[in-house]
Amino acid sequence: MKLREIGEFGLIARIKNSWPASSPRVIQGIGDDAAVSSLGPGNDLVSTVDLLIEDVHFDLSFIEPYPLGRKSLAVNLSDLAAMGATPRWLLISLALPSRLSVEFTDQFFAGMQALAQPNGVSLIGGDTSSSPDRMFVSITLLGEGKKEALVFRHGAKPGDDLYVTGTLGDSLLGLHLAKNLRGRAASPEERFLLERHFDPTPRLQEGQALAERRLARAMIDVSDGLFSDLYHICEESQVGALIWADRIPQSPAFRSLVPASPGEEWKWALRGGEDYELLFAAPPDKAEDLAALAKEWPCGITRIGRVEPRSHGLVVRDEKGPVDPSSLKGYDHFA
Amino acid sequence: MKLREIGEFGLIARIKNSWPASSPRVIQGIGDDAAVSSLGPGNDLVSTVDLLIEDVHFDLSFIEPYPLGRKSLAVNLSDLAAMGATPRWLLISLALPSRLSVEFTDQFFAGMQALAQPNGVSLIGGDTSSSPDRMFVSITLLGEGKKEALVFRHGAKPGDDLYVTGTLGDSLLGLHLAKNLRGRAASPEERFLLERHFDPTPRLQEGQALAERRLARAMIDVSDGLFSDLYHICEESQVGALIWADRIPQSPAFRSLVPASPGEEWKWALRGGEDYELLFAAPPDKAEDLAALAKEWPCGITRIGRVEPRSHGLVVRDEKGPVDPSSLKGYDHFA
Repeated sequence: MKLREIGEFGLIARIKNSWPASSPRVIQGIGDDAAVSSLGPGNDLVSTVDLLIEDVHFDLSFIEPYPLGRKSLAVNLSDLAAMGATPRWLLISLALPSRLSVEFTDQFFAGMQALAQPNGVSLIGGDTSSSPDRMFVSITLLGEGKKEALVFRHGAKPGDDLYVTGTLGDSLLGLHLAKNLRGRAASPEERFLLERHFDPTPRLQEGQALAERRLARAMIDVSDGLFSDLYHICEESQVGALIWADRIPQSPAFRSLVPASPGEEWKWALRGGEDYELLFAAPPDKAEDLAALAKEWPCGITRIGRVEPRSHGLVVRDEKGPVDPSSLKGYDHFA
Repeated sequence: MKLREIGEFGLIARIKNSWPASSPRVIQGIGDDAAVSSLGPGNDLVSTVDLLIEDVHFDLSFIEPYPLGRKSLAVNLSDLAAMGATPRWLLISLALPSRLSVEFTDQFFAGMQALAQPNGVSLIGGDTSSSPDRMFVSITLLGEGKKEALVFRHGAKPGDDLYVTGTLGDSLLGLHLAKNLRGRAASPEERFLLERHFDPTPRLQEGQALAERRLARAMIDVSDGLFSDLYHICEESQVGALIWADRIPQSPAFRSLVPASPGEEWKWALRGGEDYELLFAAPPDKAEDLAALAKEWPCGITRIGRVEPRSHGLVVRDEKGPVDPSSLKGYDHFA
């Protein structure tokens, strides 16, 4: 059987099912933004890995080494943000084709460090290798938190409100623009979208505040696309969900440049991956506390739907009614 | 400047020097078999990463997915063995070309699990991706131990004895055989050497016993080759060392099949990488305790030299006198 027949999530399910289901000191194993394990009476350990491969996740003709280093760490920080954990230590696996220069790796690490330092993250180890052709980066980010205060994908309950931070779709549109600029200088709106793709901001303080104040009951970062990531919350929480298409937050730059038919802009925002915003479920009685908290955040929050009973499934509704879900899927590596 | 001009260890030094030298809760950062960090009053966290790339570290025409999965974990277990730590959790980054089948990944994970389970290791997370051509595996292994009982590369003192577990050179000779068998059935001696290459045994119990009983003052696993790995101990401990070439332990299969001139067999054993034996320094007054402990080990230990003052450098001596060190280097990924 070929990998594309089972797809990325089929493969992950197969791996998960072939290992023992639980282990005494593993609080959260496969199936969340990060794993949580216990080392004793102190804080619990929160760990995540992200893999970036040249020509799959990035193209060196579109991204310079400095922003690539930054983004490699940002995507991992975003996973810990979605747990409400505090990042601490990173290990890196780096395979480098011999055509790359020492200056390239210097810039790559300078970019990574520029994001690591203000977030209190130290580089503690790794492995380096030559690569016959493509560059390959795998970052393991280790953080900490108390399990009672961390936010998992499970925990959403029917009746909860669904929120996202920031705006969605900017990153997908930024990537689309990068491929079509062809050396032309970017306008300020285009620059905003390009930056949203190449230099995403992990919502660490936001995730930690939501966790500490117990405002979010389930949380995930939007990396595969809103629809796909909400699907993960529904699966892990054993619930359904309803999204109002016209509430999906869009930036002014996105609205003015998205190449979609009028009234269909939200499809880009719903499907687009790599937003690295937070999607979370919160009980309705926390709405005021949430609004007060989010007032301090430049990214803001938007209520986009609600958690429903499992039997309702995952529904997106625009002004005409429910939308055919087959058009809404996110990215699958093997499909 | 090209990466090959500075080499793998030059790159690692450059990365290390560009980050802040210390961080309050990092007990051991870059420069040992694993990193050690503190999460609070419980055990300390010990973490290591190893990267395996198709056509660099393995060739799928020589190795089946089951032993590949096993070996991918074994090399990481060996790093924790060299710290005297107890392995607990693993995260995996896996990039798979679409030509590979679901059966391939099933076998790969079955092999990994066959080694994980008896060693108490759980798979807690990871990331998967398609790969345009080559398979990439990066494993992060997390373990624990108390910093006072862990054994680092620093700590060796002039006058200490140098020991290795098991025999050296088998793995390099096994790889050499694999490339030359061309479908012919292997003899029992050849099978032993092939197994030493494709299915190495990490010396976990041995490393933990040496650490717990405070018998080793500095320790490393032999992955790049005895000479290179001893060089790391010398650098981190700021000492020199003397190795007696004729004491380097060789297996009977190695002795009967190594294609070296008589009296030069030890050069294969000294240079050969991927032995995954432990090299450690112990004070002479521990010699009896060590001998008693190692009697219980099937792999045994051999005293191969001693730690010298820094000014003596790193010297290998055969029956004719000191050997030219330029012929003794291990593997460098970018050289």
